[in-house]
Amino acid sequence: MKIAVLAGGIGGARFLRGVRAACPGDDITAVVNTGDDVTLHGLRICPDLDSVMYTLAGVHDGERGWGRKGETWRIKEELTVYGAEPTWFQLGDLDIATHLVRTRMLDAGFSLSDVTAALCERWQPGVSLVPMSDDRCETHVIVHLEGARRAIHFQEWWVKHRAGLPAEAFVQVGLDEAAPAPAALAAISAADVVLVAPSNPVVSIGTILGVAGIRDAVVTAAAPVVGVSPIVAGAPVRGMADACLPVIGVDVSAEGVGRHYGARSAGGLLDGWLIHDTDSATVPGVDVRAIPLMMTDDDDAAAMVRVALEIADALA
Amino acid sequence: MKIAVLAGGIGGARFLRGVRAACPGDDITAVVNTGDDVTLHGLRICPDLDSVMYTLAGVHDGERGWGRKGETWRIKEELTVYGAEPTWFQLGDLDIATHLVRTRMLDAGFSLSDVTAALCERWQPGVSLVPMSDDRCETHVIVHLEGARRAIHFQEWWVKHRAGLPAEAFVQVGLDEAAPAPAALAAISAADVVLVAPSNPVVSIGTILGVAGIRDAVVTAAAPVVGVSPIVAGAPVRGMADACLPVIGVDVSAEGVGRHYGARSAGGLLDGWLIHDTDSATVPGVDVRAIPLMMTDDDDAAAMVRVALEIADALA
Repeated sequence: MKIAVLAGGIGGARFLRGVRAACPGDDITAVVNTGDDVTLHGLRICPDLDSVMYTLAGVHDGERGWGRKGETWRIKEELTVYGAEPTWFQLGDLDIATHLVRTRMLDAGFSLSDVTAALCERWQPGVSLVPMSDDRCETHVIVHLEGARRAIHFQEWWVKHRAGLPAEAFVQVGLDEAAPAPAALAAISAADVVLVAPSNPVVSIGTILGVAGIRDAVVTAAAPVVGVSPIVAGAPVRGMADACLPVIGVDVSAEGVGRHYGARSAGGLLDGWLIHDTDSATVPGVDVRAIPLMMTDDDDAAAMVRVALEIADALA
Repeated sequence: MKIAVLAGGIGGARFLRGVRAACPGDDITAVVNTGDDVTLHGLRICPDLDSVMYTLAGVHDGERGWGRKGETWRIKEELTVYGAEPTWFQLGDLDIATHLVRTRMLDAGFSLSDVTAALCERWQPGVSLVPMSDDRCETHVIVHLEGARRAIHFQEWWVKHRAGLPAEAFVQVGLDEAAPAPAALAAISAADVVLVAPSNPVVSIGTILGVAGIRDAVVTAAAPVVGVSPIVAGAPVRGMADACLPVIGVDVSAEGVGRHYGARSAGGLLDGWLIHDTDSATVPGVDVRAIPLMMTDDDDAAAMVRVALEIADALA
């Protein structure tokens, strides 16, 4: 079976571990958000691709939620003493090696798809990781800061301000010109099922869908599309989607996000929508199922995925 | 007093500690070789500038002879597992922070002189460190390797092959087009005394002198020029000058190097030449003095410098 998954960072990563556990031997492709990417200290950093890669490889720091297990911060401390800005981004030593390899390959002319494949030769994630686009496309956040209306990089808003600065809008710089990564479109078109991971609907899934052709590919895919709500009991399971959804006028609820994605029969994304068993939601044209959505381990995540696949199977 | 010193890496660094100790309050400028510079893993690395900077700041690893005290190698190990070549260059974690700051500033358009000054704001070496040139100029070594005549980067020859591969010639790529750093020429012209550190006469001092205008500035300087032999008892005190001198037809001896540099009265570099007290040398037109040349600590090095300054004073 061919499975395509739209995914952001941590939530997407844990969900993908569930997909891999539920579907051994199947051909799984993750189309990963790159709108969070940023160049800092001359290093090209792809937080979502790395979160997914490290988590699937089992070398992620599960407690911190991002980055490598056993990470150290020697270089970051040095950069801070040198006065090299910014100092608010946590750059781990092990992580920097990944960024050095990536930056050097990109500078040498390789595409981000090629670079990601090369990095994955080491990590063997068991899932094909594909950036949504090989083109640079970075989310900025319109905020009011120091008396002025400014666009700051998503990472500055997310990490430095902990998403605590009211966002007026999200602007994906470069998104209009970004072409989908060839393998991303191909995976969605060829899939037997398309899954939408419980990632941030605005700055992860929303950004992926904003790349020319990707939304259309999902909407018109031959395969059924089943999504998983990142919102449980009116709050994000992880991350800060509650700071993002109101900005685009979407209710912070499983129903709100389901309706925002919409039914494929009405030009939306979804055929099926998984919500947490204590939630309820009505999304016209979409098969909504309430099941336990907590991904405390791979078994939990795999159980979720099996239900999603059952829905897909019934719809196919 | 204004003192200009031509210097390579470790030998130059220890000598400069002596100059600083012997001349408190004086205006000391080190014109440092950059022919050993190299870009690896996308990082711009300036081994001699860093050796001098770290050593003057007292954060160098005295036992290893190069790099930072308390260094770790986490990133290098990661790069090796990633299969990122080359793996033979020792890139320390603390050191990488320096390279990241330098690379980013160079990419942003700052000159190497500016970058070096910025790095030195942290380290306060007490000596103005000036690269011989802001232009890229890298020494390559002509060798026979795997059945072919090849030019390999100096660092590959020096570090990977431990200078053990017979060198046919040294070629300073970019040297013909390299302009001297403005502060380098200015320091030599304005100096009350010019000192030539006991650095490698071929790939350190020789490279500095190869930059257009620097040899002339030394030869025609108003100030006396006193050099210190890097060769004691027919062998280099440190480094591998014995693998370099024969390549350019110079005898590995204090006299050989002294005669290679030559007397200023005959279009050469030197007015005075310090050799070790167990050596003897005759260099026509040059005041040769035999004194203890071992730089086991700053006091030893300062004593050497005081003799050099006495010679200069007598000649001035």
